[in-house]
Amino acid sequence: MSAQSAQTASAKLLAIKWQRPHLSILNQLLLPHASEYIDIKTSADGHHAIVSMQTRGAPAIAIVAALSLAAEVSQQQFDTAQQAYDFIMGKLDYLATSRPTAVNLFDAITKLKRAIKISLDSQEDVAVAYVDAAEAMLATDVADNQSIGLQRAVDKIKVLTHCNTGALATAGHGTALGIIRSLYQKPESILEHVYFGETRPYNQGARLTAYELLCEEIPSTLVCDSAVSALLRSDPTIVAIIVGADRLAITAKFHGRAFIVAAPTTSIDLAVASGKGIVIEERDPNEITAASGFVQTSLEAGKLVRETLCVAPKGTAAWNPSFDVTPAELITAIVTEKGVFVKGQGATEYDLAASI
Amino acid sequence: MSAQSAQTASAKLLAIKWQRPHLSILNQLLLPHASEYIDIKTSADGHHAIVSMQTRGAPAIAIVAALSLAAEVSQQQFDTAQQAYDFIMGKLDYLATSRPTAVNLFDAITKLKRAIKISLDSQEDVAVAYVDAAEAMLATDVADNQSIGLQRAVDKIKVLTHCNTGALATAGHGTALGIIRSLYQKPESILEHVYFGETRPYNQGARLTAYELLCEEIPSTLVCDSAVSALLRSDPTIVAIIVGADRLAITAKFHGRAFIVAAPTTSIDLAVASGKGIVIEERDPNEITAASGFVQTSLEAGKLVRETLCVAPKGTAAWNPSFDVTPAELITAIVTEKGVFVKGQGATEYDLAASI
Repeated sequence: MSAQSAQTASAKLLAIKWQRPHLSILNQLLLPHASEYIDIKTSADGHHAIVSMQTRGAPAIAIVAALSLAAEVSQQQFDTAQQAYDFIMGKLDYLATSRPTAVNLFDAITKLKRAIKISLDSQEDVAVAYVDAAEAMLATDVADNQSIGLQRAVDKIKVLTHCNTGALATAGHGTALGIIRSLYQKPESILEHVYFGETRPYNQGARLTAYELLCEEIPSTLVCDSAVSALLRSDPTIVAIIVGADRLAITAKFHGRAFIVAAPTTSIDLAVASGKGIVIEERDPNEITAASGFVQTSLEAGKLVRETLCVAPKGTAAWNPSFDVTPAELITAIVTEKGVFVKGQGATEYDLAASI
Repeated sequence: MSAQSAQTASAKLLAIKWQRPHLSILNQLLLPHASEYIDIKTSADGHHAIVSMQTRGAPAIAIVAALSLAAEVSQQQFDTAQQAYDFIMGKLDYLATSRPTAVNLFDAITKLKRAIKISLDSQEDVAVAYVDAAEAMLATDVADNQSIGLQRAVDKIKVLTHCNTGALATAGHGTALGIIRSLYQKPESILEHVYFGETRPYNQGARLTAYELLCEEIPSTLVCDSAVSALLRSDPTIVAIIVGADRLAITAKFHGRAFIVAAPTTSIDLAVASGKGIVIEERDPNEITAASGFVQTSLEAGKLVRETLCVAPKGTAAWNPSFDVTPAELITAIVTEKGVFVKGQGATEYDLAASI
């Protein structure tokens, strides 16, 4: 099965379209109000798409970076294998600067560098080898997400998720939202309801997860991040919090619910000894002190007028970490494409319903 | 000391101005971008100010409701004491409908009804008695807040607060923010830094607490509500979370910090046996699915153009509780105008610095 057909089979929603040598991506800045694809022809286009948040989500960033350079390399003539190798190596280093702390991106770049080094050493066509490797990465990410989604529970349940970890954040299907999608897609859905946090400051929950859940017609309700404790207290039938590689673990522990992380193994950074070694990207304070989006009246008139609103007074200092680090002892289980790892038990088949 | 002079002495910021029979309030919907006072001449004006969130904060709501009717009654002629009594009783019932779950408001209304019943029975001027009682309420609230603020700690500390509990939420000075103000105002300030959460969905932290802290020139930093766990983890010198009657207690417990509630005794509802009996107001889902505020470019041009931005896609369901209930066992201490109550110790002088 080709990368593209694997993608098509997996979800209604396709955030990354690749038909060698053409790459286009869904512009996530316009979601949920417009579904517009942007052509990505070069690594500079890919770099811009990542920096400007047109694409986001750790696995998706890695794929878009890899394929943007694949698109560029496909259109290019090289005189020698060494020239192709040097060109690609330089561009990969450049792509690594698009997000400072994206471990999946660094992992992808390391693998791609290894692939072209092997092809250079064996005197193959380095450019073709690169495009093949990038394309294989796309196919693998989709397959991994489907494997993650297949690790599923057995009873009628409600769950809570955070941020966006779905088809928009990966090459397709999704990690945590992939599990939720799989729970719902089974011949007999065992998923009763999904709650999702708005995910300040960038509102990936309110904008993107809302969009995906509506696309899939999965019964769902948006809550403020700060309302999660109240929600768990009010509804004991929410059995688990399922996230990509994210937070909310403290309140899950307090309320005795499972806290499940769903992520591809590429998100696991074996180079750091503990969570303390993870560098947290600090983003622009303006993301908190101002609000940006599309004017309601413009949307009603079928237009997209973008506007920025002031929230905090001028001069307000703000601290805006892009994520936090969940203390390891609070994680009930980690679901990957290679299986489920339960705290204190190693790899196993994790039964969500039995865990509560 | 008159109510007005007590207010003036207490803070740079005056959200409620009362000079018998004239009432005006700072329009908090325009904050932090403009400081505009609105005349409140009748109970209908007061009701509207509360419903539209021009004034908010449990103690402030009670005072504005009481004084709006005082302004109206002062301008009115009554033929008999009974007529004045019936008129005021009817208006108080009407004012009680302005916010469904404001215990301070209900408490104030009960007290005002009692005051005019006594004056009716003793054949006094009911209208004058009402205005006196409402005015006394204003003076008491300011004095209570100053008493709360005087219960203070002794070491150089950093604290975190949530929502807005300052001069804007009370008749002056504030409850939790009153403590922070007092900590900072001491001849030798023991307060190093204040962190405050943006307080979704209404951004009372980002808009109002930011405004007050800038007014008072207290060193401070805004964070997303969801970044609080990361903040406590990253900075062990944040010794306490001080709130009005609010949340964040679970993460405080997990990180071993004090969780201190600052509130006047009128916020304590002795009629409910436990937190389970507290009715939580559910507000309009649009507060989450859309963002409302002033356009940045309009403010730069010295104008106030209000706009609404779409955040979530059309059709998104949302649950929007206006607050949550902190489990009693998570509260380290409650600070009131009558003293400090520490868990398991009853009333005592609470030493913030010694508690960590």
